[in-house]
Amino acid sequence: MTSSVGIVTTQQITFDTELQLESGRVLGPITLAYETYGSLNAARDNAILVCHAWTGDAHAAGRHHPDDRKPGWWDDMIGPGKVLDTDRYFILCSNVIGSCKGSTGPASINPRTGKPYRLSFPVLMVRDMVRAQKLLIDHLGLPSLLCALGGSMGAMQAVEWSILYPDRVRSIVPIAGTARTSPMAIALNAVARQAVFNDPLWKKGNYRAEHPPADGLALARAVGHISFLSDASMHMKFGRRFSARDGQFDFFGKFEIERYLEYNGYNFPARFDTNSFLYLAKALDLYDTAWNFDSLDEALNLMQCPSLWFAFTSDWLYPPYQTEEAVRTLEKLGKPVGYHLIDSDYGHDSFLVEPEKFTHLIADFLAQQHS
Amino acid sequence: MTSSVGIVTTQQITFDTELQLESGRVLGPITLAYETYGSLNAARDNAILVCHAWTGDAHAAGRHHPDDRKPGWWDDMIGPGKVLDTDRYFILCSNVIGSCKGSTGPASINPRTGKPYRLSFPVLMVRDMVRAQKLLIDHLGLPSLLCALGGSMGAMQAVEWSILYPDRVRSIVPIAGTARTSPMAIALNAVARQAVFNDPLWKKGNYRAEHPPADGLALARAVGHISFLSDASMHMKFGRRFSARDGQFDFFGKFEIERYLEYNGYNFPARFDTNSFLYLAKALDLYDTAWNFDSLDEALNLMQCPSLWFAFTSDWLYPPYQTEEAVRTLEKLGKPVGYHLIDSDYGHDSFLVEPEKFTHLIADFLAQQHS
Repeated sequence: MTSSVGIVTTQQITFDTELQLESGRVLGPITLAYETYGSLNAARDNAILVCHAWTGDAHAAGRHHPDDRKPGWWDDMIGPGKVLDTDRYFILCSNVIGSCKGSTGPASINPRTGKPYRLSFPVLMVRDMVRAQKLLIDHLGLPSLLCALGGSMGAMQAVEWSILYPDRVRSIVPIAGTARTSPMAIALNAVARQAVFNDPLWKKGNYRAEHPPADGLALARAVGHISFLSDASMHMKFGRRFSARDGQFDFFGKFEIERYLEYNGYNFPARFDTNSFLYLAKALDLYDTAWNFDSLDEALNLMQCPSLWFAFTSDWLYPPYQTEEAVRTLEKLGKPVGYHLIDSDYGHDSFLVEPEKFTHLIADFLAQQHS
Repeated sequence: MTSSVGIVTTQQITFDTELQLESGRVLGPITLAYETYGSLNAARDNAILVCHAWTGDAHAAGRHHPDDRKPGWWDDMIGPGKVLDTDRYFILCSNVIGSCKGSTGPASINPRTGKPYRLSFPVLMVRDMVRAQKLLIDHLGLPSLLCALGGSMGAMQAVEWSILYPDRVRSIVPIAGTARTSPMAIALNAVARQAVFNDPLWKKGNYRAEHPPADGLALARAVGHISFLSDASMHMKFGRRFSARDGQFDFFGKFEIERYLEYNGYNFPARFDTNSFLYLAKALDLYDTAWNFDSLDEALNLMQCPSLWFAFTSDWLYPPYQTEEAVRTLEKLGKPVGYHLIDSDYGHDSFLVEPEKFTHLIADFLAQQHS
């Protein structure tokens, strides 16, 4: 682990404030879980915010314990000499509100009632997550971020940073994102939601933490996995192979792709809260860069910083044309914008599976911004 | 209804035989439901077999009662002067075995036990459905079929006819089919299956007919509908519009695409048996033209008749490259083969939604075969 950030600890901070949400409701106090890697320089101008995807967390790099089997979710990217070089940059990652990994979400205790929020938690938008992150940036005394970047829901956060706080972010890198989620993406989430709603253990969100609606959530997660893969990547990984332990003519016999979905689906309830999953799915569905603006043009015209966008040829969840809609708009507006369509067969997951195809472009971009 | 076949009746016939299935199991007696339109000519050479898709039935044209709200499922295609011209051709459509529309399936009574088969019904392949159809063709005294045609699962049946009974079919028209279902298609069916399995009312197939696992089957059907549509068709039909009766920040608020999936999903259990749905899904998953052959080449080399294939640009369930795999193989083998890639935004459903884009080509093809 020569280029690891080593042993890290997730920190938590609670802001005794009430956040005004897009819905008109308020949320507070706000607890945020976060991790930092590397050091802030004297000029306080080398901070990079890493934004996580749907079921991600603040633990982006390193290990919590020496014997942790796996490092943080973007450890390939973050460390000494890596793309997000901790010898040069101060890297920050915080868990979004609505999640269940240390930040305030539906499983948190509502201080007004002394009970978990559950479905009394307000419906959030990605913009609300960014407003909460801003509390942390202020708290850490960062005049501005050198960059906000992330994939998928992380890309949405990066874009929201640039239009909500244009004077606080000096560049953004949205990866495998979308200007607005399509009805196809919403439809897939609708099926995932309904899978949970159909589970008798869900009890309208009032399940006990130790008895989550595992069947429903596992099925919901399987739908997600399908959307993260691609026709080509499924062919490569599974083809039409039948599970070795099943007979092809067993009614309950499974293809390997089915076993994969089942295995990964049932791993999920142990590590993620069902209600958080649903709230974040909703935030994804509601995502529209132009929300509360007259148009996408008006929203993106607020962006003052250079942006570098990535899309992946086989991503059918947030297909390239959706990133290109934003890129073309920025070009039209005369904004400094770069875009790379990366040829990859791994679907929406490409940004995690084949980082070597594009992350050197991010390193160059960051070096330019920081020179 | 000037060009309607008018009032029609579904007929049933029972064959006191035992059909040897691909699985090694036997099934019998076999009842088949079927309809015919037009008249067999003296030469008995004008019969066309229409093969239905997953949840289709024998009622392809006309009405059962004058006040039926809707005609048969391919009424646009079948009638006097239409593409499948009942003034010229004798059209036959039969419900596949494994289904629940009059032919032997898991809801049928097993004569050995006096009880419904339910999950004791054997797992079927499309090839088995065609073997059962052959009983009917023999019974009707048809020396050969002028054509076997159909879309989706109907395309698979047409192909099986040509390789299983090459001397009994003089042309085939597979529409929106595949040489073998992909792991993506299997994955979507896997999720649909699990949605049913998760429903407490399913009871491992032992639900009462009047209390089907409606939540599970509705969800399973919703998954199917997603796969039948396309990103483009969802944009056209629903966009990101929110249901007028819901608030955007209601936890249970729905986008219009969600309402569509819910509405169509919950319409389904009243008209289709859950176990049949599962058995037919399994048959689709198992479909591989090369099954029990050394290769696709070997299988398709058995085909003796001209074939005309159609695929649709936006079909991501059975994408064009899957039809093209069969077409290229037939070309390589020197077989008479035609292929049209039809530009349509309606996904897998294109063959039902935009028939005007391609059915004239079928009419011409049939006229050539019958000249």
